[in-house]
Amino acid sequence: MEEIEVHELKKVELNKPVMIEGLPGVGNVGKLVAEHMIQELNAEKIVEIYSRHFPPQVLVNGDGTVRLCKIVIYAWKSKELDLLIINGDQQSVTNEGHYLISERLLDFAQQHDVSRIYTLGGYGIGQLVEKQTVLGSVNEAGLVDEMKGYGVEFRDDEPGGSIVGASGLLLGLGKMRGIPAVCLLGLTSGYLVDPKSAQAVLKILCRALNLEIDMQDLKDRAEEMEKVIERLKEMEQAQVPRRREEELGYIR
Amino acid sequence: MEEIEVHELKKVELNKPVMIEGLPGVGNVGKLVAEHMIQELNAEKIVEIYSRHFPPQVLVNGDGTVRLCKIVIYAWKSKELDLLIINGDQQSVTNEGHYLISERLLDFAQQHDVSRIYTLGGYGIGQLVEKQTVLGSVNEAGLVDEMKGYGVEFRDDEPGGSIVGASGLLLGLGKMRGIPAVCLLGLTSGYLVDPKSAQAVLKILCRALNLEIDMQDLKDRAEEMEKVIERLKEMEQAQVPRRREEELGYIR
Amino acid sequence: MEEIEVHELKKVELNKPVMIEGLPGVGNVGKLVAEHMIQELNAEKIVEIYSRHFPPQVLVNGDGTVRLCKIVIYAWKSKELDLLIINGDQQSVTNEGHYLISERLLDFAQQHDVSRIYTLGGYGIGQLVEKQTVLGSVNEAGLVDEMKGYGVEFRDDEPGGSIVGASGLLLGLGKMRGIPAVCLLGLTSGYLVDPKSAQAVLKILCRALNLEIDMQDLKDRAEEMEKVIERLKEMEQAQVPRRREEELGYIR
Amino acid sequence: MEEIEVHELKKVELNKPVMIEGLPGVGNVGKLVAEHMIQELNAEKIVEIYSRHFPPQVLVNGDGTVRLCKIVIYAWKSKELDLLIINGDQQSVTNEGHYLISERLLDFAQQHDVSRIYTLGGYGIGQLVEKQTVLGSVNEAGLVDEMKGYGVEFRDDEPGGSIVGASGLLLGLGKMRGIPAVCLLGLTSGYLVDPKSAQAVLKILCRALNLEIDMQDLKDRAEEMEKVIERLKEMEQAQVPRRREEELGYIR
Repeated sequence: MEEIEVHELKKVELNKPVMIEGLPGVGNVGKLVAEHMIQELNAEKIVEIYSRHFPPQVLVNGDGTVRLCKIVIYAWKSKELDLLIINGDQQSVTNEGHYLISERLLDFAQQHDVSRIYTLGGYGIGQLVEKQTVLGSVNEAGLVDEMKGYGVEFRDDEPGGSIVGASGLLLGLGKMRGIPAVCLLGLTSGYLVDPKSAQAVLKILCRALNLEIDMQDLKDRAEEMEKVIERLKEMEQAQVPRRREEELGYIR
Repeated sequence: MEEIEVHELKKVELNKPVMIEGLPGVGNVGKLVAEHMIQELNAEKIVEIYSRHFPPQVLVNGDGTVRLCKIVIYAWKSKELDLLIINGDQQSVTNEGHYLISERLLDFAQQHDVSRIYTLGGYGIGQLVEKQTVLGSVNEAGLVDEMKGYGVEFRDDEPGGSIVGASGLLLGLGKMRGIPAVCLLGLTSGYLVDPKSAQAVLKILCRALNLEIDMQDLKDRAEEMEKVIERLKEMEQAQVPRRREEELGYIR
Repeated sequence: MEEIEVHELKKVELNKPVMIEGLPGVGNVGKLVAEHMIQELNAEKIVEIYSRHFPPQVLVNGDGTVRLCKIVIYAWKSKELDLLIINGDQQSVTNEGHYLISERLLDFAQQHDVSRIYTLGGYGIGQLVEKQTVLGSVNEAGLVDEMKGYGVEFRDDEPGGSIVGASGLLLGLGKMRGIPAVCLLGLTSGYLVDPKSAQAVLKILCRALNLEIDMQDLKDRAEEMEKVIERLKEMEQAQVPRRREEELGYIR
Repeated sequence: MEEIEVHELKKVELNKPVMIEGLPGVGNVGKLVAEHMIQELNAEKIVEIYSRHFPPQVLVNGDGTVRLCKIVIYAWKSKELDLLIINGDQQSVTNEGHYLISERLLDFAQQHDVSRIYTLGGYGIGQLVEKQTVLGSVNEAGLVDEMKGYGVEFRDDEPGGSIVGASGLLLGLGKMRGIPAVCLLGLTSGYLVDPKSAQAVLKILCRALNLEIDMQDLKDRAEEMEKVIERLKEMEQAQVPRRREEELGYIR
């Protein structure tokens, strides 16, 4: 296996597709959105990417088989819009790998003449979110107004903040190649997998892509999480602070 | 010394051998099994592997001599079955090294036309094991039923789990090369070296290989450990919680 | 992107310029001085340096756009003195990167026939500084007396101390290339961004360069910090030790 | 600067010299011995080794000048015995660097047809040492008896132990090249620089080399440390446990 190995499973012809990145991260918000889109759109798996920069382990599937950590790219075509959706098990665990893998994804974007990239993620605020909000960042100043039109918030009291991993680097490195890119971060507690935040991000994204996607599955998952959160709140009021800490661990 | 250096001590001709990996890991279960097999079968040392990805140290033998950390491959031939058994002092300490060393072991497997790989290890559950159990994972769905026939358990309530190090990567990377591979993990506390769990794994493996191996030595070691555990339990009941913590450290 | 990528934005002809390095570090003293000089002198951006050895993230600007972490070199020309001022978002996060990036900066220094390098930083003493002091280190013994003349202190009771990062390596590696270099470290608490210490360093540097620079902006920022410190002291006297700890975090 | 850069300051002709390694480590025992020998024998500096695998910093000398971290090799010639003594500021801070630097030292050893290597260090036991003892390890079984004759102890109840860094790797990697090598470790608390343990190691080494070296300087330093230890003991009895912890830090 090479340092980064790209397995092209199927050749597809796409028309200036939009690339959407939803790799694991805070609240798994980006990954939830990407997975939901792949499922609802029935997108087709076209590329697998393996790398020594992923953790040195295999993941065990429900049927007892295992798989190497990988990033997967799916394609979806329609009359008005073509998509490349990036999903995966892991991000790089090395500093260098983050840069190298993002560059490889951009190579692929350029091969397919990608017209724009959306990177998706969560923005942890350390407490339960009262009002669902999606924060935006862009790699071309001209994109700010368009994004505001879709309901994305831009907060200028947060300069100095940073976006870590592929969601950030695809914007930064993409700019060098002249590919317009937007990062959408759903506010989230940072403690729990957050399908509600994923819904908020997906709504904005659908508006931006002029696309309709059924959200029932994300709603169901959000309701399940609501129940978990209710139980946590009850436990808090019942003054069982120690158990609460355990329960608040990162739940998939 | 190269990044990974393979010293072939002896050329052997093997007939579609089965490869067995037992490098250090949780409860040292895999290593105990590999060492026991090498000793009981009187297997022959044929390869030593050195690497900069091992810890930068030497190990001191009982006679005052030292040795570099290494992985050693042993060969064993019989009328019905040929084996390659992998044992060693350490696994890689770098992320990249884990991948590179597993690839090198697979290169070697392919040179000898290995028919199947078994990787062995422990699965730490954080408490003393009540009923000896061996969990299985495979890199070809077709192997599940065969393994169940030997008494291996497959639990589908644990998707999302992972197998770290060579025991996992030999399955994942082996699949890319079309080599069937099975990982057998003995349940173990994770706190102590566990010859009892090693016995359970070895029993399954012998069934799978249709091989008979005397287990007295592992039984003796298991009895010694039982005594240690008895003492720990007594100490626990005598309410000496602090000392217990120290004693429960990883004992070789 | 290469491992280290140098983007030359503009060619300039300089006359044996002095190079000044002010990358982020303790108390951000060096960065404050470099930024102040660039602003007051209206220096011109001529080079951007990107690298995989910077953190794998982008920084978010106030207008919602993002940028990759980078080091920037500015040029300033006058009749008596030419300057190259190095500023940046980050230092390397890998061991090797520190060496490689410093070497690249020295390559650039040699291309422009740099006559001397000043590296700027803070020296954390773990408590509020009573008397502003600037400590010096040099890579040629002959520079000590000259620096003393400008008010730099040399303390021989601190052999064995070390200067970490570019501020140190530019001296050490610069010596190998025969470039005279001086490191100026302003005493600082190490807990807070310290514009007062930056003023002290800048005063010395101006004397050494025979340059006049208005310091009002640094004075204003120092006054703001004084107020923060006053509040911290009050809180300390009001015996709120826990909150104090939080407030004493590294404030930009 | 290359990854590892060897600056040969002077060519020397040596007659099957003995190489002695005393790089920093536990109790700085090895470094103290090497420094003492260089000083007493007035050995000549012949090689400096720089590397990106050393910490990214410079060290500040007493006169305000700085130096890069480096390893230095000294040569000493006499009628009966020639020596190469290795001293330095640091060991590698990367895993790979430890192997690469030790290999480079062995390249140098082979160029000079080194007849034997002694590596020196401390063995931390976590408490003050009652009886000065020097433990030995070798890379050829035949060396054990010779070393016992000089008063070196070999303890066979400590298999499984390891020797980290150059002191270990020069034995392990040296064996691959057929260079006989011995590691001498002085028992030491591990908390303090230990000139007394250094004396014990030097005594053995002088016996092995049939060499006489004045030890007054090490004795003086040992007496100073004795006073420090006395004060620590008094403080312990005076029940000031917290301050003791601070004072017990690694004192140069």
